[in-house]
Amino acid sequence: MFEFNIKANNGLARAAVFHTPHGLVNTPVFAPVGTQATVKTVTPAQLSELGASLVLSNTYHLYLRPGDELIAKLGGLHEFMKWPHPILTDSGGYQVFSLAKTRKIDSEGVTFKSHIDGSTHRFTPEKSIQIQENLGADIIMAFDECADPNNPEYIRTAMERTHAWAERSLKAQSRQDQALFGIIQGGVNLDLRVESANFISSLPFAGIAIGGLSVGESKEDMHKVLDSINSHLPVNKPRYLMGVGTPEDLINGIARGVDIFDCVLPTRLARHHSAFSRHGRMNMMNATFASDTQPIDVDCQCYTCQTFTRAYIRHLVVAKEILAGTLLSIHNLHTLVELAKEIREMIYQGIFEENIPRLLEIWKFNANKQILK
Amino acid sequence: MFEFNIKANNGLARAAVFHTPHGLVNTPVFAPVGTQATVKTVTPAQLSELGASLVLSNTYHLYLRPGDELIAKLGGLHEFMKWPHPILTDSGGYQVFSLAKTRKIDSEGVTFKSHIDGSTHRFTPEKSIQIQENLGADIIMAFDECADPNNPEYIRTAMERTHAWAERSLKAQSRQDQALFGIIQGGVNLDLRVESANFISSLPFAGIAIGGLSVGESKEDMHKVLDSINSHLPVNKPRYLMGVGTPEDLINGIARGVDIFDCVLPTRLARHHSAFSRHGRMNMMNATFASDTQPIDVDCQCYTCQTFTRAYIRHLVVAKEILAGTLLSIHNLHTLVELAKEIREMIYQGIFEENIPRLLEIWKFNANKQILK
Repeated sequence: MFEFNIKANNGLARAAVFHTPHGLVNTPVFAPVGTQATVKTVTPAQLSELGASLVLSNTYHLYLRPGDELIAKLGGLHEFMKWPHPILTDSGGYQVFSLAKTRKIDSEGVTFKSHIDGSTHRFTPEKSIQIQENLGADIIMAFDECADPNNPEYIRTAMERTHAWAERSLKAQSRQDQALFGIIQGGVNLDLRVESANFISSLPFAGIAIGGLSVGESKEDMHKVLDSINSHLPVNKPRYLMGVGTPEDLINGIARGVDIFDCVLPTRLARHHSAFSRHGRMNMMNATFASDTQPIDVDCQCYTCQTFTRAYIRHLVVAKEILAGTLLSIHNLHTLVELAKEIREMIYQGIFEENIPRLLEIWKFNANKQILK
Repeated sequence: MFEFNIKANNGLARAAVFHTPHGLVNTPVFAPVGTQATVKTVTPAQLSELGASLVLSNTYHLYLRPGDELIAKLGGLHEFMKWPHPILTDSGGYQVFSLAKTRKIDSEGVTFKSHIDGSTHRFTPEKSIQIQENLGADIIMAFDECADPNNPEYIRTAMERTHAWAERSLKAQSRQDQALFGIIQGGVNLDLRVESANFISSLPFAGIAIGGLSVGESKEDMHKVLDSINSHLPVNKPRYLMGVGTPEDLINGIARGVDIFDCVLPTRLARHHSAFSRHGRMNMMNATFASDTQPIDVDCQCYTCQTFTRAYIRHLVVAKEILAGTLLSIHNLHTLVELAKEIREMIYQGIFEENIPRLLEIWKFNANKQILK
């Protein structure tokens, strides 16, 4: 049911077709994030039109509101949010550690207080799998502990707990129509990362997720982790780099063998009037754009760029119109979905590796080229 | 250029085709309001899909931000907001009186302070027409004074000023590709309303607007005003009831000979999680809807009702997701656009008058049937 067929390789990069109950996912792929069963400000029709194939949703949020049992009763997450294509849910682990008001970890699980109303809840590997089975996504995650990167001494403890929970997550799975991924932890300690990669790879997971990155470490450290684990991962399983996804990260991640990415950045930046583009990261509030009749990105085929001028989008931003967030979300999501597609096609043509420097030059705007025209 | 061809009559109601430079408007029609050159939370593509033909935008807002001269430089309002269909702009009069921080009226015009930054500006009939010519809408309004309904003694003064300004607005017009409407004032004083109807009708306007209603008076008073002026209006010019547009108001207005309506209510209610429907006005926050798999309105053909359940929309509302506002706006706007269309077809068939009691029974929810299932 979850065949992962690699069609082309180029260096460490792979282009593949991942089969799921709700359709094919061509990888490498960027998955928009629909935290609360909606990709913020965008309809499923717009999401489909901008080229999305796989959407991520968050177990922690949906468990708290509207509740996984209600979603199951209403026919599952695909039916609830009217996204008939593949969906991935995380395990709730990361959110519990980062969002819950207070939390207490023991070897069995985590007790935490809801960020919404302070009520007390408990997640265990078994509970996380049960919730994810209620939600019914195509791809689900083992319950893991994402260690505080500022506490290196604790990283081994968290990793070992993650390994024990990985085994319990596998045992807890009862549905056969969901691809369960194991999660590699280990912080930026390369020895621990290799140990974790070997352990998770030894278990019968349908795919491998790389957790605990993009949590404050340097890009260099992220790349070292990806480099160190690559040869320890099974070739024939999809690899998912959790919560990572600037244009630059996609290029660097795919070059290091990653197949699946997700990130809230495109929609979050959109709500803060920023646009990704081949011209740099653009702050659409900038007065430079007041009478600019070009689209955000002249080479972009999204609805926003095919329809509206920078001048109009700047007006919407300045006038605090919600439509600005929608139009910028459509553009930013399309940009990442399309970049993954562009790289995929380069892998098929065997020309991705030689194009990495050029792609990084175009898309390296996160550091220096902010707010360029 | 602005032919208004009445195709059918039924009682006082008329069905007509109004020709404008950007296409035909079939009347009776409901015009969504795009205050700041956007119908809030809705894209032009969605607006077109939900059936809108005529959109209103506000002179006061666009003059202040982004500026009418900038919009002219960028190709006019149609090009700026990418609405290639007919547009109507108001004169700015109503907004100056209701929104500006302070204002001082004299016989020449109004000096006021911007609600955005407190800067001082001045509108005269000539200035209002100049701004509206810069914006370039198909239908534009004479500059008028909407008198405070709580100050009946002042209503004659305001009406006479409105009449003088109507003549000056006509003289100020230089573009021939915009239909200039005169505005009838007079509060709820029926003698003044008849006097104003006679005066405005005697001038060479392309259409007649009825201003100063839906500003706090009773529905009964609104109906009396419409009844009193009907026989004093030219038959062969379009009639526009400004700022009025609940489902009930549409039925009652069309029955009294009105052709064009606009109102912010559908989008404003949407942002406050209320839906119009044949089941009553629905507060989508209501727990009743938590597991309700029906659409908002089972008889509605809009994208929202054809796609999503009440349960999902309630979830979006409770989770404070912006998409709730978009989906409810699409539904509420479609409902009014469609109701106008349904009545139009009844007029063509000669059965509107006999159906008024039935329509009012279905749609009379504004008063009593709030928050019904």
